[in-house]
Amino acid sequence: MSRKIRVAAAQIGAVHKTAIKSETVKRLITLLQEAATHRIQLVVFPEATITTFFPRHFFTSQEELDTYFEHGADISQSPDVKPLFTEAEKLGIDFVLGYAERTREGVGYNTCVYYSASSRKVISKYRKIHLPGTVEPFADPEAVNQLEKRYFTPGDLGFRAFRAPGLVSDAVKKADVKEGETTVGKGDPILGMMICNDRRWPEAWRTYALQGAELLVFGYNTGGNMAHLWGSKPMSPEAAQKEALFHSRLVQQANSYMNACFSISAARCGLDDGKYDLIGGSSICSPEGNVVAEAEGTGDELVWAEVDLGECRQGKEKTFDFGRHRRVEAYGLIVERTGAEEVELL
Amino acid sequence: MSRKIRVAAAQIGAVHKTAIKSETVKRLITLLQEAATHRIQLVVFPEATITTFFPRHFFTSQEELDTYFEHGADISQSPDVKPLFTEAEKLGIDFVLGYAERTREGVGYNTCVYYSASSRKVISKYRKIHLPGTVEPFADPEAVNQLEKRYFTPGDLGFRAFRAPGLVSDAVKKADVKEGETTVGKGDPILGMMICNDRRWPEAWRTYALQGAELLVFGYNTGGNMAHLWGSKPMSPEAAQKEALFHSRLVQQANSYMNACFSISAARCGLDDGKYDLIGGSSICSPEGNVVAEAEGTGDELVWAEVDLGECRQGKEKTFDFGRHRRVEAYGLIVERTGAEEVELL
Repeated sequence: MSRKIRVAAAQIGAVHKTAIKSETVKRLITLLQEAATHRIQLVVFPEATITTFFPRHFFTSQEELDTYFEHGADISQSPDVKPLFTEAEKLGIDFVLGYAERTREGVGYNTCVYYSASSRKVISKYRKIHLPGTVEPFADPEAVNQLEKRYFTPGDLGFRAFRAPGLVSDAVKKADVKEGETTVGKGDPILGMMICNDRRWPEAWRTYALQGAELLVFGYNTGGNMAHLWGSKPMSPEAAQKEALFHSRLVQQANSYMNACFSISAARCGLDDGKYDLIGGSSICSPEGNVVAEAEGTGDELVWAEVDLGECRQGKEKTFDFGRHRRVEAYGLIVERTGAEEVELL
Repeated sequence: MSRKIRVAAAQIGAVHKTAIKSETVKRLITLLQEAATHRIQLVVFPEATITTFFPRHFFTSQEELDTYFEHGADISQSPDVKPLFTEAEKLGIDFVLGYAERTREGVGYNTCVYYSASSRKVISKYRKIHLPGTVEPFADPEAVNQLEKRYFTPGDLGFRAFRAPGLVSDAVKKADVKEGETTVGKGDPILGMMICNDRRWPEAWRTYALQGAELLVFGYNTGGNMAHLWGSKPMSPEAAQKEALFHSRLVQQANSYMNACFSISAARCGLDDGKYDLIGGSSICSPEGNVVAEAEGTGDELVWAEVDLGECRQGKEKTFDFGRHRRVEAYGLIVERTGAEEVELL
């Protein structure tokens, strides 16, 4: 049974440190309006979309740091961001938005939400679990920091898949139920959200796939200069950028295939403040691991495709039929050992 | 600290149903001798190397089926295979060999062993955990079967990593210990073995990586006709072969990267019995997910490289520093749910 939906990654170019949030949100709205002209149903925005990627800076002022966060439980009521919700409701488009969240208790999370236009509200929230980087800034003042471990707490909401209503028509859902072969791919699509570094951790994808996820989405702020930062072998900035994009694409394609799901990746890109380069490369991948749409440039850009979620069945029912093939008795170490312990052989 | 070793995949071309085991073993010995001329220290042979890939056939005679198995606990004493062990000892080359194992109790496993030349014995055995295919043959007499679930029992030895002595010199090991920064990548190299379909399951790679594995090896008998077999969208035999090779390479590269280890894949290839095509594509991958050596043809071929296991450190100590980044509290479903249950959201 065909389960076609029209989806997009909204790639966002440079957002400088001095950018004004409400102005950045206007750029998001412009892409949302473009999406409407293509009858897109779901738009995925990047990680921490509405400010520059501030974990690259070491702030000594808590007050200054806090300007990069959204405060309180309900992002849809944030004055700077509310116009995006209003526009999405008007256009009838679902979206995923990443932002830095400060709870009432003062805890910082790297968060994203799923806004359902048909529900007229946020129906799911995810807080980034795999925080990269360091707690302390680098000693070298020239080095670009990655202070997510300083500014954020690992997400406490787990990898909770959810059904997104309104994307697949009632007629299709009814026909699916009649078909009755399997519980996979029936009813409203099952989605999962990740953020940036999560995509490199197969556990994240798998936990969603074990809930039947057909579509995984994530935004990212991956720097092209990471290879330098992290001390790998010397290479030119161009080679480093190429390798970083290669790794990003590689894990997206392979994990989409191994989990028999579509995926959408939405990148920040361009040169923040004219000097911090980001890899870009927003794309949509199929359950066979093929790229079906990808960004052409390094600025604001809508990357979209009509995808048939029914194509997940081939993988979910054959090669990756979990029930027939998985052997959980052999996987214990995955939850028993973080990796911080001394290396011990089984 | 440099930890260079010279390794090879021994790709094996067509092995027909009528092939005589001792003759096939002579082909393996020829590749072992070629390896010696390149000062190779470890040669990886494919899955079920010494017969045709018999799970594609439905046998009604147990006696006939049993001719494809090696019987008893010690493969090195099997008259047909013993010359390979003798030659490896003489040449001082370690090897991994896949074969169908029938235990004294009559249980069938898809097995491989690691022979250590410096130890003069088999030091590790692995029995394939992720068995693909079906228990019952296809109704269509034209369809190519994949009866691993009929002929084999899922492996009962887990994913046990092991140290392979004699590959890294005592001088290097001593220098490593002096360096003393980390337990990763010290002493004898830590290896893990998989077989064919295991490579598509990230749990297998991860379980080894959590034991510090620096080099994962696997053989395979992947058919280029699988896409047809398993009912995906219609495509030409050429396109199916290309897609099957793409998937094989994709999971090897991505999992090598995500687990910061080298990997060696050794393929059976060519046309068994002039009609059953296999994808070939033996290769060696780096911890950055790059292919560093790959097969050029579809016949017997040695694919080799000198690799520096020290290159695993970059990934193991930074991007994929498990101890700092893994969040096991979020991974429970991976061992709690096989996937056979009704889809339930967390």
